Amino acid sequence: MPPASESSRSGLLRRIAASSTWRSDEVFKGIGDDAAVLKKDGSTYILISSETLVEGVEFDLTFLPFHQLGAKAVSAAVSDICAMNGKPEAILVNLGVPNRVTSEMIGELYKGISMACTDYQCQLAGGDLTGSHHAFIVTVTVYGLADKKSIVFNSGAKKDQAICVTGDLGGALAGLKVLLREKKHWEETGDTAMQPDLSEYDFVVKKQLIPMARKDIVTAFRQHNVIPSAMTDVSKGLLPDLKRILAGSGCGAYIYQAALPVDLQTRKVADEMKEEVDLYALYGGEDYELLFTLDQEKVDQLAENCRDFTIIGKITDKKGVVEMQTDLGEIAEFRD
Amino acid sequence: MPPASESSRSGLLRRIAASSTWRSDEVFKGIGDDAAVLKKDGSTYILISSETLVEGVEFDLTFLPFHQLGAKAVSAAVSDICAMNGKPEAILVNLGVPNRVTSEMIGELYKGISMACTDYQCQLAGGDLTGSHHAFIVTVTVYGLADKKSIVFNSGAKKDQAICVTGDLGGALAGLKVLLREKKHWEETGDTAMQPDLSEYDFVVKKQLIPMARKDIVTAFRQHNVIPSAMTDVSKGLLPDLKRILAGSGCGAYIYQAALPVDLQTRKVADEMKEEVDLYALYGGEDYELLFTLDQEKVDQLAENCRDFTIIGKITDKKGVVEMQTDLGEIAEFRD
Repeated sequence: MPPASESSRSGLLRRIAASSTWRSDEVFKGIGDDAAVLKKDGSTYILISSETLVEGVEFDLTFLPFHQLGAKAVSAAVSDICAMNGKPEAILVNLGVPNRVTSEMIGELYKGISMACTDYQCQLAGGDLTGSHHAFIVTVTVYGLADKKSIVFNSGAKKDQAICVTGDLGGALAGLKVLLREKKHWEETGDTAMQPDLSEYDFVVKKQLIPMARKDIVTAFRQHNVIPSAMTDVSKGLLPDLKRILAGSGCGAYIYQAALPVDLQTRKVADEMKEEVDLYALYGGEDYELLFTLDQEKVDQLAENCRDFTIIGKITDKKGVVEMQTDLGEIAEFRD
Repeated sequence: MPPASESSRSGLLRRIAASSTWRSDEVFKGIGDDAAVLKKDGSTYILISSETLVEGVEFDLTFLPFHQLGAKAVSAAVSDICAMNGKPEAILVNLGVPNRVTSEMIGELYKGISMACTDYQCQLAGGDLTGSHHAFIVTVTVYGLADKKSIVFNSGAKKDQAICVTGDLGGALAGLKVLLREKKHWEETGDTAMQPDLSEYDFVVKKQLIPMARKDIVTAFRQHNVIPSAMTDVSKGLLPDLKRILAGSGCGAYIYQAALPVDLQTRKVADEMKEEVDLYALYGGEDYELLFTLDQEKVDQLAENCRDFTIIGKITDKKGVVEMQTDLGEIAEFRD
């Protein structure tokens, strides 16, 4: 620990789920999806999810201002509700606050939280403050609702369905690389006064610092009568998140390297770092895009109305296996 | 920061609540009570609360084994549901795990969580693992239900009603003092192999390490048709928690020092530490007892069936003021 890989982590969570035996009639679906699903009434499910961000692990206060941290923590939690095709209604915020953090900083954090709540139309409905010796800790719990008719689990993908992803991949990781390079530069030169010009990298830096949960896509699904067969958000990275859909649905995937949506800035950063941009696209976390599967005719129906998604491959019957057709026409295979 | 006092903390949370403007129709009551209250159906409210425990602040792994930490984290969260006269149904657990913590330790933690879930009859329904550089971090989010007819807020206390508390006060703090003394002894002597004999302090040590949320009292209320007018749990300490009821209800309190329920072991520990045991009773946190107000005739009705509570005083109309009649017959006054 910490879990070396996504598969060891989900393995641990699976064992944990099996070890705990009490079952409540109120729970429709527990561990295993983006949010826990509980029963509300005849037509509606309740969704609950909780995200903890720890300073030094998920964020670095040297380049993430408090109000952006607040907004990002809300986005990370709300993204789990979007990933179930649901709508966020309320959040709770728990903070672990070290001595060096002032009330003014906390006030800034809550400005960001409040702005994000307005963006996502959900209410700040509770929370708590506690101390912390070292790291600043933010936990956002989100409460949302989903129609029983349109809730999407990660278990419904079927052979031959298209695999789609919104926006672009690897941008948040590229932004992080730029920020870490700048931080290293400041530390080496001691030149903390000068603000670096990051305008060449504005898109990817923004993607890292103030990602948005794709509530707009959930709205588009509803407006255009499209319900994905399976969905999750790209929070850990395309491959680990795709594998959760494959594990949930008992199937495999065939994806096209050439189809992976990568922004030009992401490509530029990878080039500067002398790294493979496809690794950014396959393993970069925190993009908070939506990854979903859909029948081909529904893809056409959605594409007529919404352009902000890409078909990156299709579902196969090779359980748990991701095959990728490379730009050279070869097949790379990713197994657990 | 961290908040120096309960009042500065609640002040900050109040300012935060006011600064965040979006309101959801699904929220019945947001910030200000033990749990957020949301709408379920015609007869039922949903309760959600989240508790974060940070190593070195809320717990010390040198004397709190992982399975007890798991159980304690669940109890702390479930206690918030009991404090609203509700029933827990499900929990989510988020962990921030430093490198030194092994998968086996996490397994032990979940054994404790699982046992507590069985005790409280609620389901482990989700959660997440992340890393942490220093402290081990446990956040438990609890989902519960309350009947609209019997939910209890902290805002319903009325003049002349009795103020009651379950169990005893200051025990968890006394237990902590004993454990810290033993820890200091081990550190000074280097004698880590010898297990100290703490049997003289078994009650208070247990109260610190494995407190129980008073779900049994909520059950007794239901069985005997008693609904408190206001309630909260004693998590921060009698005085700060009583002040939350007074603030919520716009009233004051008159309490009797002689009536404060203190266990003999708590008294013994205070004597050994050369400290005032009443300070343990007034300010000791983590007892997770229930503090509630009730009409006098209802007190009699409850007392006929349930002996595990004490009347410690009555509600007055002196807004926000706690007066305490001391053993010497003097009146001590506690204002914010």
